[in-house]
Amino acid sequence: MNEGRHGAPFLFSGKSPTIPAMRCAVILAGGSGTRLWPASRRARPKQFLALGGNETLLAASVRRARAATPDVMIVTAADQADAARVEAPAAVIVVEPAARNTAAALGLAAAHLVARDPDAVMGAFPADQHVGDEAAFGAVIERAFTAAERGDVIVTLGLEPTRAETGFGWLELGGERGELGAGVRDVARFVEKPDGARAQAMLAGGAHLWNGGMFFVRARRLLDEIERHLPITGAGLRAIAAALARGDRDGAAAATATAYPGFPSVSIDHGVMEQAGDVVAVPGAFGWSDVGSWAAVAELLVTDGARNARRGDAVVVDGAGNLTVTDAGVIALVGVSGLTVVRAGDAVLVMPAERAQDVRAAVDALTAAGLSRYL
Amino acid sequence: MNEGRHGAPFLFSGKSPTIPAMRCAVILAGGSGTRLWPASRRARPKQFLALGGNETLLAASVRRARAATPDVMIVTAADQADAARVEAPAAVIVVEPAARNTAAALGLAAAHLVARDPDAVMGAFPADQHVGDEAAFGAVIERAFTAAERGDVIVTLGLEPTRAETGFGWLELGGERGELGAGVRDVARFVEKPDGARAQAMLAGGAHLWNGGMFFVRARRLLDEIERHLPITGAGLRAIAAALARGDRDGAAAATATAYPGFPSVSIDHGVMEQAGDVVAVPGAFGWSDVGSWAAVAELLVTDGARNARRGDAVVVDGAGNLTVTDAGVIALVGVSGLTVVRAGDAVLVMPAERAQDVRAAVDALTAAGLSRYL
Repeated sequence: MNEGRHGAPFLFSGKSPTIPAMRCAVILAGGSGTRLWPASRRARPKQFLALGGNETLLAASVRRARAATPDVMIVTAADQADAARVEAPAAVIVVEPAARNTAAALGLAAAHLVARDPDAVMGAFPADQHVGDEAAFGAVIERAFTAAERGDVIVTLGLEPTRAETGFGWLELGGERGELGAGVRDVARFVEKPDGARAQAMLAGGAHLWNGGMFFVRARRLLDEIERHLPITGAGLRAIAAALARGDRDGAAAATATAYPGFPSVSIDHGVMEQAGDVVAVPGAFGWSDVGSWAAVAELLVTDGARNARRGDAVVVDGAGNLTVTDAGVIALVGVSGLTVVRAGDAVLVMPAERAQDVRAAVDALTAAGLSRYL
Repeated sequence: MNEGRHGAPFLFSGKSPTIPAMRCAVILAGGSGTRLWPASRRARPKQFLALGGNETLLAASVRRARAATPDVMIVTAADQADAARVEAPAAVIVVEPAARNTAAALGLAAAHLVARDPDAVMGAFPADQHVGDEAAFGAVIERAFTAAERGDVIVTLGLEPTRAETGFGWLELGGERGELGAGVRDVARFVEKPDGARAQAMLAGGAHLWNGGMFFVRARRLLDEIERHLPITGAGLRAIAAALARGDRDGAAAATATAYPGFPSVSIDHGVMEQAGDVVAVPGAFGWSDVGSWAAVAELLVTDGARNARRGDAVVVDGAGNLTVTDAGVIALVGVSGLTVVRAGDAVLVMPAERAQDVRAAVDALTAAGLSRYL
């Protein structure tokens, strides 16, 4: 103890280990979906909403990722960059010149990362998910980063299924990969959104997990895979990475502006993961939700004795199983059940809970009625 | 013509007829009902809402009354006097020191009127009704004022019934009183809100009209009737009238402040009209609505091909027979029918149309939940 107090600075004391590769959490914040209208708008997509608590989904995603690494990169659209900067002042913001889906967005992140560290390991996260058990989530992503660092593999998070969900892709598990960490398994194959019977069978069988859309991989390896399966994207990304590697930021920006809009619009799952070898899964259970509909939002909220869930002030008279969400004021329901009522800003949406997937119909009707100023 | 141009001023030319008694339209704007919450609030009752058009119900009532007389008096509560003055700058505003129902309010108006003209004839109108056919209304109230001026009678407007309404009082017609005007009939008796079978029978029989709550009577006669049937009120009003007659405004104000809160709270119908002799009815049909519920509001609005009525921006997908009312922004409905959805200020109300009489339940629930700030 005396030595410690009077000796060399702590940071340089002892034997230095091999400097580990950089870890970076890449958060994809390019979404512009309409499934949570009227809360989500063109100018304020879902990731900028505080749906499960007091912080936005994006801010929560950044905060949770920092459990595993201080380096956070946000890939987003130009018109959302300022808002993202407010939510995550310490993050690196990379701007997509056009929306080209997740393969292009994650490839662009990888191109930036290899320029900073050729061995960088990236973890990819959506900006607009909800995690109920953050401690469990932190432990799982730590295991996933570690697995990606130990082997030249692509690691995906496999979510333990809690229902026969037909709206998600699933993972079919293969053999154990204990050398990468306890519980790590090969992914035998990706299962696209199944029908109800298939989903029931997978839920019962225990050999399948939900594909949560979170991947951990060396940036270099991801670029290799993209080059193999999406050659146009791969060539463009190499040019961007080369400019960045020689410190030519203007050249990188020009290459991005030129090449990116020509990239095929394809998801990382379909475009890369389903084609790639050596994909493994780290299983996890952490109260995950994609917050993909008002019905999903309802599940995040506590309910009263009549299964009414609310966010913001509300009263329900003679009604059960309603969801009320308001960003101001109050919602009063009399004699209705199973309804979803959302007031956000200048718009009110009313629909039965089971029509949660049909918000798009309201959005289309507003457009057709010349009322797209409310979108 | 030459004489007219160069002779005495026009006002004094020719032979002066007998100076007619003053006519005054007395508009009762003391209502504070909750049946149109959230549009109507404590601080902005129904008469201050523009429900059928672009002017408030009060302003429309004043405008319509001026078809028969330029003199308009508004009786209202102290906390609504300023708002009433904005709606009717040229009207005399008389303030009730406490809410004591319509017998006291009309009596107070009568006390003020006899001080201005002992023969004054008053026409009493609610501030919060809707009239669809204003030309017909103007002709009917002209006939009613004329009948009250011709005979020492109490004239009530009898509305031709369009449905077997159980929410209104009805009038049973007696003999003809042609000397008071074409179509004038005695009122044999007042029928309180009937049950459905009785209402059907009255509708079919043709000898009954709805009691619209509009009365025309000499102010002096009304004070006599009040003195006979409501002696406490009558004595207090005489003291107020006496002070006004001797030009003692302070004395009148003091007498009002002292006596008025002690008046029994009773309606003019129950307290006076049902007891009085010589009540006659002038029948009329002018698209009348008491705007007494959201269902009544719906009837004032045009509907689309699926019977959806709206005020303000709205879209309806897969739904019929809905009413949407919003004072700002838009309401979007998906997959719901027969709903009433109202957004006004900071509150949203959702209920089935057939629960229109149960808005009170929402108001009570808000009070119980400590949310009376929204009332």
